[in-house]
Amino acid sequence: MIEITPFLNPSTSEPLYMQLYSYIKKEIQHGKIEPGMKLPSKRKLSIHLRISQHTVETAYQQLIAEGYVESKPRKGLYVNSIHEDIFPNNTPLPKVVKRESLVQNNHYKIDFSHGKVALENFPYSVWRKLTVQGLHDDQLFFNGDRQGELTLRGEIAKYLYQSRGVRCSAEQIVIGAGTQYLIGLLTMVIGRDSIYSMEDPGFHRTRVAFKDQGVTLKAIPLDEEGINLEQLKNSKANVTYVTPSHQFPNGIVMPIARRLDLLKWAAESNGFIIEDDYDGEFRYKGKPIPSLQGLDPNGRVIYLGTFSKSLIPSLRISFMVLPKEILASYQSHFTIYKQTVSRLHQYTLYEFMKNGHWDRHLNKMRTTYRKKQKTLIQLIDEYFGNNVIMIGDDSGLHILLNVRNEMSEQELINAAAEKEVKIYPTSIYYENYIHDLAPKVLLGFAGLMDNEIKQGIQLLKEAWF
Amino acid sequence: MIEITPFLNPSTSEPLYMQLYSYIKKEIQHGKIEPGMKLPSKRKLSIHLRISQHTVETAYQQLIAEGYVESKPRKGLYVNSIHEDIFPNNTPLPKVVKRESLVQNNHYKIDFSHGKVALENFPYSVWRKLTVQGLHDDQLFFNGDRQGELTLRGEIAKYLYQSRGVRCSAEQIVIGAGTQYLIGLLTMVIGRDSIYSMEDPGFHRTRVAFKDQGVTLKAIPLDEEGINLEQLKNSKANVTYVTPSHQFPNGIVMPIARRLDLLKWAAESNGFIIEDDYDGEFRYKGKPIPSLQGLDPNGRVIYLGTFSKSLIPSLRISFMVLPKEILASYQSHFTIYKQTVSRLHQYTLYEFMKNGHWDRHLNKMRTTYRKKQKTLIQLIDEYFGNNVIMIGDDSGLHILLNVRNEMSEQELINAAAEKEVKIYPTSIYYENYIHDLAPKVLLGFAGLMDNEIKQGIQLLKEAWF
Repeated sequence: MIEITPFLNPSTSEPLYMQLYSYIKKEIQHGKIEPGMKLPSKRKLSIHLRISQHTVETAYQQLIAEGYVESKPRKGLYVNSIHEDIFPNNTPLPKVVKRESLVQNNHYKIDFSHGKVALENFPYSVWRKLTVQGLHDDQLFFNGDRQGELTLRGEIAKYLYQSRGVRCSAEQIVIGAGTQYLIGLLTMVIGRDSIYSMEDPGFHRTRVAFKDQGVTLKAIPLDEEGINLEQLKNSKANVTYVTPSHQFPNGIVMPIARRLDLLKWAAESNGFIIEDDYDGEFRYKGKPIPSLQGLDPNGRVIYLGTFSKSLIPSLRISFMVLPKEILASYQSHFTIYKQTVSRLHQYTLYEFMKNGHWDRHLNKMRTTYRKKQKTLIQLIDEYFGNNVIMIGDDSGLHILLNVRNEMSEQELINAAAEKEVKIYPTSIYYENYIHDLAPKVLLGFAGLMDNEIKQGIQLLKEAWF
Repeated sequence: MIEITPFLNPSTSEPLYMQLYSYIKKEIQHGKIEPGMKLPSKRKLSIHLRISQHTVETAYQQLIAEGYVESKPRKGLYVNSIHEDIFPNNTPLPKVVKRESLVQNNHYKIDFSHGKVALENFPYSVWRKLTVQGLHDDQLFFNGDRQGELTLRGEIAKYLYQSRGVRCSAEQIVIGAGTQYLIGLLTMVIGRDSIYSMEDPGFHRTRVAFKDQGVTLKAIPLDEEGINLEQLKNSKANVTYVTPSHQFPNGIVMPIARRLDLLKWAAESNGFIIEDDYDGEFRYKGKPIPSLQGLDPNGRVIYLGTFSKSLIPSLRISFMVLPKEILASYQSHFTIYKQTVSRLHQYTLYEFMKNGHWDRHLNKMRTTYRKKQKTLIQLIDEYFGNNVIMIGDDSGLHILLNVRNEMSEQELINAAAEKEVKIYPTSIYYENYIHDLAPKVLLGFAGLMDNEIKQGIQLLKEAWF
């Protein structure tokens, strides 16, 4: 048995048992108290150090719990063997470092981002009121339905039917924190052995999400009506991802004949179509075209939607509508995955929809974006004339500009950046990009005010012509 | 050219262009206007129907947009060929159906669930105040940092250092909507070609998440100190998932020697340890044992934590701390994934932590859970005596009961259910379950009040003995 004589200071704020525990631990770590040694009994040490047995007991308990010593029945406490050489030295806490990306956009005057939305007309006070209402309901702090709140799913089903021609019940809707998350979940539910395909060009975030899932992904070129069906058939894919309401990035609205042909492909090949209707709410000519889902009598369409464009991006509320076959697979194997969206936000959105605020907001946003798009188009006509061709201006929150001044895509972006205007490439959306003599750049307008749009176009004229 | 003579009713609320568009669309669908036919010019039809050219134009635009007709330059509008046979009949909107699972727990008087938490002491008014404060900041409605808000990550880093001995900077922390989501992200970041492994028994949700990612997952048995190192070495796995602070479900607190040996394995094999510290905050004897991450000088530990147990389950805020090598992979390839947690909730949590509410709340919860656990243990002693053995009562929000009355696990659960008490199996946590003669059942206590715990134990006595 060893003697332990630490210096215990009763006048500091550190409790005696902690001082005793720390002392013995350090002695063990430094090898001064060696493996196999027996510690003094509680009684003996308490007498020796003139402290209570309880203090010694507490320190010993901690040493036992951390594995430094071991209690052998009817024998006493023995020091365990540890590898003190791999103990970390007490390096100071690393400092907080800012990432580059956090500040990268700061030097632009005008940013034609397509990820922004207009919140100048957002009904903040209603949203706040409904949020606070939810915060008074304890139940919303506990986990809810894995698939998403049934009440919210009911409202979404109603909205989709009226506005997008989607025919579904609340039962078929799965809520999730963003489209990328849902794509990940979908590959599990559909299965990793399926052959996936998507439009080329298409959303790069979606392409990456499929690829990171480790599934086979074929790139299917577009023709002027959308995804090319011959190529889709040749690819042997049985799942395909499309953006028929407003092809991203090219803005093609898939005509009815192509829609029906695509549905026919799915029915005949037992395939599935993933229809991403990311900004289908915003259409500027006539009423919205019915979704593929609404045209499909055979249950071959998975419909994806989001509130990120139409409501609040940072809420992270997206959803998918599963056809029967896929729903059965989801419900039998995948409800083990917890819901990823805050239940409180789901409640707020439900109340917002139920009480008619959503319809009013959406109508207001349609007007807002129609005006902004009109301003943008008029300015482009006025300033650029025949030097550019506008693409994809039927709907959505961005347009493409085919710029004919012999600059490459990168040169266009660089020249704009020199005038402190940020515009976006389209080449990144291609799996197989062919160097384009008349490159297309992307301009989003949702987050800009009219005067900003004007300033941006003026600066782009200086930059390009 | 065809003649079109619809009945247009100017006294209904439906605009004339809609009536005209619907009429022509229906005629095309029913084959009355046939593919290849030419539509009358705007001018002619407007005179014929005595409506404005603008009305005709709008109706035609919609038909073009939807692909029913096609504009041939200098020739006019021609009807396209469509497959009217696959048009869906106008089936009524499916009704909302309730899932079984929504009502499955309703017939229990007492539910010893381990997913519940105690919110009776939650500082609701502070949380509401901070939430409302955030709702006044427009910026929080836009997307934030992909990795999570830097301010919140800074607070988490501080907390982890002080409370769990985790040494990291805010830079190393990635926030995400739940542990299952983060496991999915991790398999991408670490790579699908790695060989994964985890404790057996272990969290079944985690096991499923790995398996659904399509990676190889080896089950490593436990011995009395936690994951068995010999078996881990033999498995050839290079990534292993463990719960060292409170093994789930067995409750083993991994002693220091095993921790150091595990770290040695990782250092020598260039492997990674995923340390899930899901309820490490709640330890009832002495102070918490330092995390593996804090003991690791070699950057081989990925630390997972969550606010679901310690704060609010439905917020869906979890996080991981990445070592350098993994962080580099994340930042170069995976910041394309948008943040899945609401930025507003991140802000509220940041303010909550920064202003000391988190520390106070956690201390209160430690006391609350200590009391509840003490109540549970005393009642078990009193009512069951030597008929049961308690396992894993050093920490956490659940205990295991090894019941010795010759009932099987299922019989124990069924007998409890007959008394309207819900208890939980442990066999589901095993990859390789060996039928146990003295089965272990799981009792969570966090969501129950003292009188409920008492009633539950009394009923279990009636059920089992």
